[in-house]
Amino acid sequence: MAPEASPLWAKNLPLDRAIHHFTVGDEPTTDRALLAWDAIGSAAHARTLAKGGYLAHEDVRALLAALKELHGEALRGTITITPEMEDCHTALELALIERCGEAGKRIHLGRSRNDQVILALRLLMREELAQLGEQVIQIALAFLALGKTHATTPMPGYTHLRRAMPSTWGLWASAFAEGLLEEVEALHAVLARFDRCPLGAAAGFGAPLELDRAHTAKLLGFAQVQRNPIDVMNSRGRHEGALADWLASVASVLEKAFWDLILFSTEEFHFVTLPDAFTTGSSIMPQKRNPDVLELSRATCRLLRGQANLVHEVASGLPSSYHRDVQLLKAPVLEMLKNASGMFAVLPALLNGLIIEAETSQAACGNELYAAHAATALAINGMPFRDAYRTVAAQVMTGGFAPDPDLYTGATRADLTTPKALLHDHQASLHTARTHWQECLANVWELPIDQELP
Amino acid sequence: MAPEASPLWAKNLPLDRAIHHFTVGDEPTTDRALLAWDAIGSAAHARTLAKGGYLAHEDVRALLAALKELHGEALRGTITITPEMEDCHTALELALIERCGEAGKRIHLGRSRNDQVILALRLLMREELAQLGEQVIQIALAFLALGKTHATTPMPGYTHLRRAMPSTWGLWASAFAEGLLEEVEALHAVLARFDRCPLGAAAGFGAPLELDRAHTAKLLGFAQVQRNPIDVMNSRGRHEGALADWLASVASVLEKAFWDLILFSTEEFHFVTLPDAFTTGSSIMPQKRNPDVLELSRATCRLLRGQANLVHEVASGLPSSYHRDVQLLKAPVLEMLKNASGMFAVLPALLNGLIIEAETSQAACGNELYAAHAATALAINGMPFRDAYRTVAAQVMTGGFAPDPDLYTGATRADLTTPKALLHDHQASLHTARTHWQECLANVWELPIDQELP
Amino acid sequence: MAPEASPLWAKNLPLDRAIHHFTVGDEPTTDRALLAWDAIGSAAHARTLAKGGYLAHEDVRALLAALKELHGEALRGTITITPEMEDCHTALELALIERCGEAGKRIHLGRSRNDQVILALRLLMREELAQLGEQVIQIALAFLALGKTHATTPMPGYTHLRRAMPSTWGLWASAFAEGLLEEVEALHAVLARFDRCPLGAAAGFGAPLELDRAHTAKLLGFAQVQRNPIDVMNSRGRHEGALADWLASVASVLEKAFWDLILFSTEEFHFVTLPDAFTTGSSIMPQKRNPDVLELSRATCRLLRGQANLVHEVASGLPSSYHRDVQLLKAPVLEMLKNASGMFAVLPALLNGLIIEAETSQAACGNELYAAHAATALAINGMPFRDAYRTVAAQVMTGGFAPDPDLYTGATRADLTTPKALLHDHQASLHTARTHWQECLANVWELPIDQELP
Amino acid sequence: MAPEASPLWAKNLPLDRAIHHFTVGDEPTTDRALLAWDAIGSAAHARTLAKGGYLAHEDVRALLAALKELHGEALRGTITITPEMEDCHTALELALIERCGEAGKRIHLGRSRNDQVILALRLLMREELAQLGEQVIQIALAFLALGKTHATTPMPGYTHLRRAMPSTWGLWASAFAEGLLEEVEALHAVLARFDRCPLGAAAGFGAPLELDRAHTAKLLGFAQVQRNPIDVMNSRGRHEGALADWLASVASVLEKAFWDLILFSTEEFHFVTLPDAFTTGSSIMPQKRNPDVLELSRATCRLLRGQANLVHEVASGLPSSYHRDVQLLKAPVLEMLKNASGMFAVLPALLNGLIIEAETSQAACGNELYAAHAATALAINGMPFRDAYRTVAAQVMTGGFAPDPDLYTGATRADLTTPKALLHDHQASLHTARTHWQECLANVWELPIDQELP
Repeated sequence: MAPEASPLWAKNLPLDRAIHHFTVGDEPTTDRALLAWDAIGSAAHARTLAKGGYLAHEDVRALLAALKELHGEALRGTITITPEMEDCHTALELALIERCGEAGKRIHLGRSRNDQVILALRLLMREELAQLGEQVIQIALAFLALGKTHATTPMPGYTHLRRAMPSTWGLWASAFAEGLLEEVEALHAVLARFDRCPLGAAAGFGAPLELDRAHTAKLLGFAQVQRNPIDVMNSRGRHEGALADWLASVASVLEKAFWDLILFSTEEFHFVTLPDAFTTGSSIMPQKRNPDVLELSRATCRLLRGQANLVHEVASGLPSSYHRDVQLLKAPVLEMLKNASGMFAVLPALLNGLIIEAETSQAACGNELYAAHAATALAINGMPFRDAYRTVAAQVMTGGFAPDPDLYTGATRADLTTPKALLHDHQASLHTARTHWQECLANVWELPIDQELP
Repeated sequence: MAPEASPLWAKNLPLDRAIHHFTVGDEPTTDRALLAWDAIGSAAHARTLAKGGYLAHEDVRALLAALKELHGEALRGTITITPEMEDCHTALELALIERCGEAGKRIHLGRSRNDQVILALRLLMREELAQLGEQVIQIALAFLALGKTHATTPMPGYTHLRRAMPSTWGLWASAFAEGLLEEVEALHAVLARFDRCPLGAAAGFGAPLELDRAHTAKLLGFAQVQRNPIDVMNSRGRHEGALADWLASVASVLEKAFWDLILFSTEEFHFVTLPDAFTTGSSIMPQKRNPDVLELSRATCRLLRGQANLVHEVASGLPSSYHRDVQLLKAPVLEMLKNASGMFAVLPALLNGLIIEAETSQAACGNELYAAHAATALAINGMPFRDAYRTVAAQVMTGGFAPDPDLYTGATRADLTTPKALLHDHQASLHTARTHWQECLANVWELPIDQELP
Repeated sequence: MAPEASPLWAKNLPLDRAIHHFTVGDEPTTDRALLAWDAIGSAAHARTLAKGGYLAHEDVRALLAALKELHGEALRGTITITPEMEDCHTALELALIERCGEAGKRIHLGRSRNDQVILALRLLMREELAQLGEQVIQIALAFLALGKTHATTPMPGYTHLRRAMPSTWGLWASAFAEGLLEEVEALHAVLARFDRCPLGAAAGFGAPLELDRAHTAKLLGFAQVQRNPIDVMNSRGRHEGALADWLASVASVLEKAFWDLILFSTEEFHFVTLPDAFTTGSSIMPQKRNPDVLELSRATCRLLRGQANLVHEVASGLPSSYHRDVQLLKAPVLEMLKNASGMFAVLPALLNGLIIEAETSQAACGNELYAAHAATALAINGMPFRDAYRTVAAQVMTGGFAPDPDLYTGATRADLTTPKALLHDHQASLHTARTHWQECLANVWELPIDQELP
Repeated sequence: MAPEASPLWAKNLPLDRAIHHFTVGDEPTTDRALLAWDAIGSAAHARTLAKGGYLAHEDVRALLAALKELHGEALRGTITITPEMEDCHTALELALIERCGEAGKRIHLGRSRNDQVILALRLLMREELAQLGEQVIQIALAFLALGKTHATTPMPGYTHLRRAMPSTWGLWASAFAEGLLEEVEALHAVLARFDRCPLGAAAGFGAPLELDRAHTAKLLGFAQVQRNPIDVMNSRGRHEGALADWLASVASVLEKAFWDLILFSTEEFHFVTLPDAFTTGSSIMPQKRNPDVLELSRATCRLLRGQANLVHEVASGLPSSYHRDVQLLKAPVLEMLKNASGMFAVLPALLNGLIIEAETSQAACGNELYAAHAATALAINGMPFRDAYRTVAAQVMTGGFAPDPDLYTGATRADLTTPKALLHDHQASLHTARTHWQECLANVWELPIDQELP
């Protein structure tokens, strides 16, 4: 078969091209997402070089102007990284040399691709992760809105996938909001890992000149410097793993909702009807409406879990410091971010569009769901619970169990306001963080070179 | 083959015993670790029942006395859970009935095994995780101590496992202290997940009576109630996963140190000699001293990573609420705790005992390690770095590179005091938390029943 | 807390005991399963030593007698491996020295614990895997029996968990038989990997004396010698991985059946009732019958998958030859064998006991399942299928679709005889293999020392 | 940030586009690799429809001509699958309708996208896997060639990464050839899983018309029909998993060689020099030559293992029959094939180019490597081995061990001819299989419609 249509086409390349193809790998593609961040990181580095007296002010100004241009072009996607350039760092340096001449050749003083790429990745992961956090909050709020609309609409509570006790849609929906809230809280710890500026680690043992690392950190909105340069190298993979674990944990919360909704929307349960826009037809069976979005979401949860494991697998098993192996972390991390975001983007509308089939879900709440209530009532009236349990069990077995649900308090009422308030707090706190970062990045372009950082 | 010697012996059991064997699984073993915690959780439950007026004071007193006894017996390992009892909860209830009569039959009012086991697991995980955190701090401090002793002892810094730039043992050792410090910081977020009291969720939809859940939470030292009972069920597995991810992340930090030390202690590197107590001999080659402790530690890191993935695998793929599947999470979580702790226990002594072969590691620092220094020096003197790089590269290629190391600043100096102070802060904070829990647990036994909680 | 009740008790041990505890790990437990196999392997080694003239006949006879005794004691479980002995190999050698004196000290000539343990593991895995294959065949045959009883009992065929086309219980049940048949076929390739005798590799570079490795191989029923001694060491982990992958693949077939049965036995589907012996009750809800065996089986499938990944994780990431890391493979492999076998043991009875609710499953087969039939019929009569599809789709949308199922052939009929015959073939072939191994092992004890192997 | 440069750009899409983007996912890209295979499968289906009398001969001829054209275009990469088309199946059907009119609308009779995509995937996996097998054989032969050139060149054999016993490059190299040979043998079992024709399963419950499935199978070179249509659906994921496990197992063999070569090529070992074409420089340290190809190969082994786990994760956890979830299997499987092939392509040249530093590796073989020889020699002369071991150990400890290596046989000699012959056998057998498939596929286009299959 010809190259284009087969995943194995590389095996027919001449040796030098096969080696180049293998070592460059996906970089020309993955690095498109890094270019803009590399431009920002490079600008901060140029400023710190100037502060140390290693770069003339006119050189810095030329570099900043060119980097700002390149940053814009990177965002618009108009820069191509050719396989010959290999990665975004070479592409950037070549463009700087082309646009600024000698000054372009001065930018790499005091840094290595090793710390340069970690900085670009960290800036990207920090921003994207915060945005993903905002998406998760949106989803949690959509669950709460659904829970509010159907706060008391009855449905059976299931254990072992068997009808167990009376529950409500309100309780069901808020469970996922609470689970997501826990994840949003945990997100701060992941962002805290990233809140250390790696630049200055150079190849992993520091740079042989005096760089004000705290200055770079402040320029880029980091709370602190990542002190030990070997640890900077060691944190590549560790940070990707923390990001991946968090996404996988969010996925593990959502997965249960997807499974529930797939079951609840079967002909057999019929507790919910999915909005049309979220279903698709069959190529052979004209009558079908399939819950494809939910299935793909469920599968995306497993995919994210698989990718988290893959990230750990690739990142692990190595001695300290830099090894080329870590290059293979880029693509899976970017994939995870894309997969999560693509799924998150459709979920609020899906939740808003759900049509709750209240009659059916109520009808499924038979009297047998009140067996625990009946036993509890007996116990409150003095019979030891274990005996009450046996008494009601005997009634159930012999068909003599006929409770009056009106006697009982029914389903537990969900607290919908506390999680909402907490989610809004987190929303505000993420917004504050992102605003701070944006101001820092704006300053990287705009601030007069001699001016003290605000 | 006979039963005892084969992993497959169950296949020869009669059907009912095979089913019982399969459903009970490892519970009689795993639940030995849960029993003491279940006794504590049961005592708190009894107190909250009394507060709600569901249990007479004399019953509570009888139950508390018996539970305290059982707690002690559980700690001493003198309680056996027979396969017929299946799990610790049945074992406990049977013992209470035996010792307190009717009162024993009253304890299960308002709870289910579902929330009961989650509580016991959470108490266990909270305590053990905090203890593991303390162990990690000890290891980090041992790295810092090593780094201090050899703060300036030279060794080559490696990238790609090739000599790259001058480094020191101080820089090397502190890198792991810093990595572990990041993990200790992240630990708080895991403990925060656990800081919600699950009791009162009952089977997953709340209990049909008025229980003061905040009272139970306070009794047991939890900062808050886990509000949504379905989320309580959903968090089983999620919390185990968070614990597992943290252990795996700690392992990923340590793994690099183990790999380094295995390499550095080879005949070829000879940068370090391992203390005798940490090596073993061969059954066939009389001359060998093998780094078995380091190898088993390295393998334990992979094991912990594999177990983390296993925990996620078992916990995932399910609809919301309770499913029996989660029973299979117990054994791997307990295994992980044991594996991590067993490894952590030997590491401080291993690090303290390392014999640094300073002469060899210094001798490995050839002049070629100063190539980046030379290029940087040229750049500081005005040559664009990229040209300086090419100039030095040409010298290296032609053998004309002869730098004078004395001209350069040498290796980056590690900051050993900041991480030490931060580690001590975390040590104090974990100690405070554990002290608070212990006081709470003491109060569970001792506080007069009517007394307000402190 | 006191040692016994906490997974972390080792952290309070004195250093030397903590190191010993950590390095010995689970060996005293895991090696109980290896002891009998080690006795057999040792007997074969003694015979090959004798054949090479390295061991006097009277020594061999004494060793064989003692090993046969020890083999029997190992099977009866009456040998204890103390932590001081560390593993089964030391336990065995000590027992031989005690029982045979000097001869016992001669047995280790020409071998190392490295090849000794690989041999014991390989013999164990070969036998247990073949037995697991027989269990899988039993399960597949039980599926076929179910399929035969209900060959034409209607049920809806589901895609996307939505009713799609007419199907039958016969088709459903035979699908799993076919899937398992594919696994049974694949099993031979795993057994073929094991069909190489590792003994003689010694520490991984061969033994410095002339051993007739082909003789050892023949004695133990191996088709060939594993030629390269480094590859013998490298295959540790590789073979465990192949075994683990196979079990995980079998689990992936069964998992779908468990999921189906859990769904089909809900109140909502009610297509099947589970036999009472396979369900359990609730601690709080007296009315419940929960499908615990199916849930634990489903979870065991995920557990096996997780353990397979764990085995790969522990086995991987190492240079060639022996490293102590591989010790940690023993426990998970034995766990997997036990987990799989415990689950397999209950499945045939579960399948035999299923009560098919034919009325309900038939009633769920509404006319809409015949939409593809109707479109196909139109297409057979000349309308292009894509147009026929649209025609029927329009009828369905407008409610005008009213097919006469009697016009159509209905569900595809399952072929139940071909897979049955093939399963019986594999059953016979596994039986032949196991018989051959048993004869070989009998000869290891019984054959006169000078006699040519049959 | 603007869409193009961020992995999260989808989150800014309008809802309908976000849903479409999420459901279509990577299909327009992944399906480019499937298109040619789908054309072949469609041609076979058209022929079988004709054989059953469901399609006029002139329609078949038109379809075959158009499909052959499309097949060629697909191979040349000149067909674009637009996001609106979603996948290759729609793209193909649309093209057929455009080129053949009504006939194009007839092709989907008797099949579903469900069996159509499984067929295309299976044809692709069968071919690519066989080609990967051929690549693996090339690598194994390159190891043998290296082993032959340096059959007796000494190097230390390492255990625990410590010098253990005398070995040779011949023994080292042939170990990997033997390991790969075992994988090549195992490959046949994977191909045997694929050797079942899925077409005719339709949506998973068969097609409601009489199709000669054996005819389709024969046309496409399959040994048999995959009988049960539900099992056809269930095998999606199972087959991908088997392919993935095999690649991961091959990777586990190679990984050890990469690790060894990375270590052996350090300054500290210096046993081998890597060919220049396989190393790269540093961006900051002019003196460095880094083993990037080996590092990326090592990382690719972990990546393949991670991807195998990911494939299992995505494929698992589902009830029987078709679910949209499986769509997410396509991209990782194609990725694995590409990653493996890209790595395999460079390895023979890497092995051929290795410069063995025989002097250094010989010099590392100190006398202490002969300790086991000395103990064995004592044992052969009558001293029990355990006593001999202790005697030599005492000499080593006291420095009195001075063996004469000339007395001993030295390193075990590798058998290089047997594995070579076996590899050639497998090469021939894979070639035969691929030739048969190519002939079948040629016949799909060329054979007169009425003609019996050869």
